[in-house]
Amino acid sequence: MYVTIEGIDTAGKSTQIDALRTVFTDAVFTKEPGGTAVGQTIRSMVLNGELENKRAEMFMFLADRAEHTEKIIVPNINTLIISDRSCVSGVAYAMVQDVCDIDTLVQLNRLATDDHLPQHVFILKLTPQELTYRLSQKEHDAIESRGVDYLLGIQDALIASAYAFGIQTHVIDASQSIDTITLEIANFIKGTL
Amino acid sequence: MYVTIEGIDTAGKSTQIDALRTVFTDAVFTKEPGGTAVGQTIRSMVLNGELENKRAEMFMFLADRAEHTEKIIVPNINTLIISDRSCVSGVAYAMVQDVCDIDTLVQLNRLATDDHLPQHVFILKLTPQELTYRLSQKEHDAIESRGVDYLLGIQDALIASAYAFGIQTHVIDASQSIDTITLEIANFIKGTL
Repeated sequence: MYVTIEGIDTAGKSTQIDALRTVFTDAVFTKEPGGTAVGQTIRSMVLNGELENKRAEMFMFLADRAEHTEKIIVPNINTLIISDRSCVSGVAYAMVQDVCDIDTLVQLNRLATDDHLPQHVFILKLTPQELTYRLSQKEHDAIESRGVDYLLGIQDALIASAYAFGIQTHVIDASQSIDTITLEIANFIKGTL
Repeated sequence: MYVTIEGIDTAGKSTQIDALRTVFTDAVFTKEPGGTAVGQTIRSMVLNGELENKRAEMFMFLADRAEHTEKIIVPNINTLIISDRSCVSGVAYAMVQDVCDIDTLVQLNRLATDDHLPQHVFILKLTPQELTYRLSQKEHDAIESRGVDYLLGIQDALIASAYAFGIQTHVIDASQSIDTITLEIANFIKGTL
């Protein structure tokens, strides 16, 4: 089974991935972008701002996703794969950047993944109040500094993206305690294995 | 006006580009892939075989094309642009690799270029006999070593690709003398400027 954890910055995605590593010690943990060697290069090129065109950025991420699917997802499809982000993020960020319409974005990602989509997506969702509080508690990096509204827009797009793919979507209240969230995700995964 | 010169290896594409530089001294000469700084990196990554997945390769070339369109084609659209390869090659190579159907390939390339397609394509076409002779006269690199049938398949795909885009297509007998071919291309361009 292939599941993905999604959420905006400060939602606690990395913390949950780390916690799930201790629960599912036999699972394959991976990430997008940058889950393969060439993907690391692609990720650096995009995040360093080497590309000026937003469609070029999207195609680079699709290349990363195609390579990740071939090298990580397909060979492990019969085990539990837990991914930090996926095509769900890919479409959400492209939606916010208004690269093209959502139907085209879904089609492009189905092509890149050869229809190997996650079976389940867990989206860690923050309220505006909780997001505002969390941002105030930490130094902001480039993306976070774009503000609360930008991040909430991405959060909405993550949910819209998951539904557009038709992936089983689990929206989780990210203001709960770390352990509660881990238990919620882990229990669900155990129940479907 | 934006025109592209296309042709398989040994067809004389580079020779013609060099000749056209001396005729159209005010034109912008460019190339795909690798016509921009980031495109050079993308080109190296793909040609070095860093990607294992053929769809990943296609998306990398689409990223290069999107960036090239934004940085080279659009800013110079009101002058003469002569490009060494274009989306016509992009679709042709993807067709031969059977990445996806031609309609999807055209759609992807229209998206990458934001519909800034070449107005004219000049395809330097070799007969099987001439291609066989030319290959026998030189050391073969990786692509050329795949043989006559492979290259003829690409040549057919170049022509099919150009027509699929609906670009004005000029198929030129590449067995003619260098000067004759240059004159044919140059006279046509001069007639339309």
